[in-house]
Amino acid sequence: MDITKIEAAAQRLEGHARVTPLLSSPFLDKIAGRRVLVKAECLQHTGSFKYRGARSALSALPDAQRARGVIAFSSGNHAQGVALAARAFGVSAVIIMPSDAPRLKIDNTRALGAEVILYDRASENRDAIGATLSQKRGLTLIKPFDDPDVIAGQGTCGLEIAAQAATRGVTHAEVIVCCGGGGLTSGIALALQAKAPDMQVRPAEPENYDDVARSLASGRIERNATASGGLCDAIVTQQPGDLTFPIMKRLCGPGLVVSESEAQKAMAQAFSRLKLVAEPGGAVALAAALYHPDAFEADTVIVTISGGNVDRAVFTAALERFGEG
Amino acid sequence: MDITKIEAAAQRLEGHARVTPLLSSPFLDKIAGRRVLVKAECLQHTGSFKYRGARSALSALPDAQRARGVIAFSSGNHAQGVALAARAFGVSAVIIMPSDAPRLKIDNTRALGAEVILYDRASENRDAIGATLSQKRGLTLIKPFDDPDVIAGQGTCGLEIAAQAATRGVTHAEVIVCCGGGGLTSGIALALQAKAPDMQVRPAEPENYDDVARSLASGRIERNATASGGLCDAIVTQQPGDLTFPIMKRLCGPGLVVSESEAQKAMAQAFSRLKLVAEPGGAVALAAALYHPDAFEADTVIVTISGGNVDRAVFTAALERFGEG
Repeated sequence: MDITKIEAAAQRLEGHARVTPLLSSPFLDKIAGRRVLVKAECLQHTGSFKYRGARSALSALPDAQRARGVIAFSSGNHAQGVALAARAFGVSAVIIMPSDAPRLKIDNTRALGAEVILYDRASENRDAIGATLSQKRGLTLIKPFDDPDVIAGQGTCGLEIAAQAATRGVTHAEVIVCCGGGGLTSGIALALQAKAPDMQVRPAEPENYDDVARSLASGRIERNATASGGLCDAIVTQQPGDLTFPIMKRLCGPGLVVSESEAQKAMAQAFSRLKLVAEPGGAVALAAALYHPDAFEADTVIVTISGGNVDRAVFTAALERFGEG
Repeated sequence: MDITKIEAAAQRLEGHARVTPLLSSPFLDKIAGRRVLVKAECLQHTGSFKYRGARSALSALPDAQRARGVIAFSSGNHAQGVALAARAFGVSAVIIMPSDAPRLKIDNTRALGAEVILYDRASENRDAIGATLSQKRGLTLIKPFDDPDVIAGQGTCGLEIAAQAATRGVTHAEVIVCCGGGGLTSGIALALQAKAPDMQVRPAEPENYDDVARSLASGRIERNATASGGLCDAIVTQQPGDLTFPIMKRLCGPGLVVSESEAQKAMAQAFSRLKLVAEPGGAVALAAALYHPDAFEADTVIVTISGGNVDRAVFTAALERFGEG
């Protein structure tokens, strides 16, 4: 994994993935006590950065292999990213989703043309279901993070951050990335190592699901007690990936941990100050910048808002608890 | 007024106003029955397109005149645009606001460094207050729409629409613009006349405040019964401007009129499909595209979301009424 792989992904994504804007607000700067630049990946196709990695992975497949179709396991953002990327290439996508996934995410994935197969978390083994299907139909598995082409695709977000920050005269900054399995974090870190070496990537996670922060602290892969649950479900994983962790260990840290209340407060700030819809897991980096100012030394922090796929009820609950006006 | 004035404004705004993204969603295309491209001006500095015109007008003033300060009348978006533009130039801004304006907008305008003077709508004459202050302190009035430099500033949004649509291969489209006094509508129309002559600009307004639609139909300036009120307050004006109307009469129409419920439904769609916060008045163009499909002939419509300065309660009410999930 190096910068040439990310630059190759950027070429394959050009004109397909959106170049998302880098936003700011004097009101956020005031809360944080420093300059805050916000990379709005919630504006990416399908509402999260996941489309970058999915499209990168599909576009890297040999034509004949891709034509047989792809398969993915996901309850949310990766599902939609793979579904749209498959549709763009005119190939079939099978998405294995838990039967208790939010109805809207299931409906969206289907509406994007994917074949959704639901399984019961308690009684069925999703890997077995996937393996049988893959073998029978010759489908290629698109992993959510632990795949070099997925990491390279997420890394294109880092190329954009480096270029957009440079036009504002910013070359030194701490870059806070909402972190689940580490695909976005490690991809951005590799891109910035090459393009903006004075920037330091800091993963941000929710309380109780801080496997990456603990892994970076101990130097080896640590696990969460559970692999799902909580308000920030989109970025909850059991543990960092076998490919992503060594990259993060080399380039990133220390990790940042925020409470669910802080993520909700950050959602309300994104609403009122940036006019953006952030999902709870997509708001943890902004929450770290706004509510943990002592964790940073740089004059400028750059935060990702990694996704905006949030149900109405969860969003209005955050506004009602912390919104202004 | 012609394209050279808009291009000059674009040069003055370069690196100061944001180039806002042109977004899309397959879900919106499906509702509208055609391709929908969304110009996200809610992501502009201060949360609305008004910053373009305000900064254009201030930057066009002779240095000595600007240094004495500026004054504006506004209860909302124009106030914030002028306040931030004045702060960027390091000059003072006096904003005359009605005492019953939303507290958040008053607070924001003050937080952006402006001196806010409140007046009572019932008992005081704001023009007299403004005239006295302007004379005493040598302040220059920045009008909300009926000023060539303001129209030219709003027109820079049209330059961006033409360029961004062209990169997607779109040169023929109907362009729906949320319309109050007509500054944004006339500015975009002038820009597109020069840069994308196969595009037709269509102003969109809320029910009961459709002065522009009626004026375009009759060929002369028609007034609304009242100059304020309703959910779409940001784009409610008594009548089109003396400068903006002749431009709109020459280049724009026919006008589109949507209900407040349709504006709320469009807000909910912007939330779930674009991850954008739209205010009611900023959502009328999207509402026209989604819920009045028979009003259009082109395969592609381009809609402005002109602002996102909406109170929490108004936003959550729209989601609770029409949001999915």
